[in-house]
Amino acid sequence: MSEFALIAKLHSALAVSHPEVQIKSGDDAAVIVGDDKHALAISCDTLISGRHFPRNTSAHAMAFKALAVNLSDMAAMGAVPRYATLALSLPKACANNDFISEFAQGFAMLANQYGVELIGGDTTASSQLCINITIIGKLPIISGSVEALRRSGAELGDDIFVSRELGAAGFILAQLEKRLPNHIEPIKIEKYNALDYPQPEVILGQKLRAIANSAIDISDGLLADLQHILSASGFGAVIDIANLPLAAMLKSPILREELNWAQQLALTTGDHYGLCFTAPRQNRESILALGAWRIGTITQEQGIRLVQNDVTLSLPISCGFNHFA
Amino acid sequence: MSEFALIAKLHSALAVSHPEVQIKSGDDAAVIVGDDKHALAISCDTLISGRHFPRNTSAHAMAFKALAVNLSDMAAMGAVPRYATLALSLPKACANNDFISEFAQGFAMLANQYGVELIGGDTTASSQLCINITIIGKLPIISGSVEALRRSGAELGDDIFVSRELGAAGFILAQLEKRLPNHIEPIKIEKYNALDYPQPEVILGQKLRAIANSAIDISDGLLADLQHILSASGFGAVIDIANLPLAAMLKSPILREELNWAQQLALTTGDHYGLCFTAPRQNRESILALGAWRIGTITQEQGIRLVQNDVTLSLPISCGFNHFA
Repeated sequence: MSEFALIAKLHSALAVSHPEVQIKSGDDAAVIVGDDKHALAISCDTLISGRHFPRNTSAHAMAFKALAVNLSDMAAMGAVPRYATLALSLPKACANNDFISEFAQGFAMLANQYGVELIGGDTTASSQLCINITIIGKLPIISGSVEALRRSGAELGDDIFVSRELGAAGFILAQLEKRLPNHIEPIKIEKYNALDYPQPEVILGQKLRAIANSAIDISDGLLADLQHILSASGFGAVIDIANLPLAAMLKSPILREELNWAQQLALTTGDHYGLCFTAPRQNRESILALGAWRIGTITQEQGIRLVQNDVTLSLPISCGFNHFA
Repeated sequence: MSEFALIAKLHSALAVSHPEVQIKSGDDAAVIVGDDKHALAISCDTLISGRHFPRNTSAHAMAFKALAVNLSDMAAMGAVPRYATLALSLPKACANNDFISEFAQGFAMLANQYGVELIGGDTTASSQLCINITIIGKLPIISGSVEALRRSGAELGDDIFVSRELGAAGFILAQLEKRLPNHIEPIKIEKYNALDYPQPEVILGQKLRAIANSAIDISDGLLADLQHILSASGFGAVIDIANLPLAAMLKSPILREELNWAQQLALTTGDHYGLCFTAPRQNRESILALGAWRIGTITQEQGIRLVQNDVTLSLPISCGFNHFA
């Protein structure tokens, strides 16, 4: 049973639907209209040790990343994050001063930066470390309608962008899990690396509200997440491989010979937490000026077609991640 | 490290405090003022299989209870529950149609009854079944101030009430865990029993907003939860044991000889999810008419003094539950 079938099943028994809930589950956050001026964007994400983090990840990095992942959902909606609740299930071995201090520092680093107040929470003893955050942000209401970025807003002919270089988190994870191809040198993994300390695009998301048509954050991998935009919008896409911005560690001389592997990392690995978004052509210059990379175009033809120098490629790519596979 | 020390430590690194957050963590829910007419009450709770539920609890009961526990926090604030997010961490063996259908039915039973819309969620594979719900409710703003029940509102001389009979969930749990005293007959445990299907006092909580001074829901046991009211309000209490309403299963003939044990269950066992609340004496009749039991009085003297027919008792009671003990 896939994650999506499971969520659909859950909803099938539920009968309540409030008129002020303007965006339901299925986007990066739900949106509830509050008053005439503001709506609330609400989202929750769980991260589990050994699944979402390699086992020896520090408490500092786990807290940072758990909040980053939630802030990234706010970024994908263009919302201004404001409140969070934290439910922490902890093995007894972690319920000590050192672990909690480190954890608090990692959480505070992002919470203080983005003005997020921790308004509630819950701690429970558990065999597995499990961090669940619900985040609440604000969206403006302009002329009676909520101004939010959505997955479903892509239009035919839109440019497709990514907000930053791709593949670094995937490379680091492959190295930690000893999946690097034989002839590729491991890198030195810094403390504040792309896997452990993903930077949510909170500010960019707010800027994009006015100029982009659709957005999603790249959590499961570019192709899988772009496909969510395409399915919600009813279009396809063509991506030019030559335009994929590769992380520096994928561009070392030896990796040039492994461009295929590097591109696969860029296209399919998650834990990126930049944004993938689409915008009408007339906004191309203002978007490029924000530092984003244009990688393709929204098409009538369904699915994602990969091209390189006008030649359609067929890379052996498995995309997306099924938690219950 | 206790749960409360851990939460204090977590907050120590956090710098953000928004003026519209009128009630911070430490009550049954945080309260955020939205507009001139409404505030939002927000709370989250996690339930873990094997800890909060005996291992063979049905998916139906687990979902019901997880939502009931969260609705009970809304009840304790006097809030009208309206939205929920659900983060479900599931062992692969549970990610099947039967389990999810049962779970959905259990969740829907309460969600549909109380008008709660599921607005978002997250599913994750996990070795341990873990259900995290964040619930959001509404509170009225009257003459510029939020009308909410609080832990801190108890006043000297207030009557102390419980909303329903005590000890049934504790009895059932003791039986399941084979901790019944030798000469006490096990009962037949019905499907819709007090342990698996606690009824949150959602409607009562809303009625109490206007007539009670303070409230809490009984999750950890009457004495432990009443102590939260007393600490937040700066008072003590005297409880008359003779007035404790005991659940029917604690009043069988054989149990009369074990009154001490029955009273201990009533005073110290959790999973009750009725309300404990205090109210000024002039509201006594209207509160008794709602079906609540008066069990004691708020006093200047700190701590909880137990009396029976005017004699102070000293029962060998350990109260409260420390998750990390």
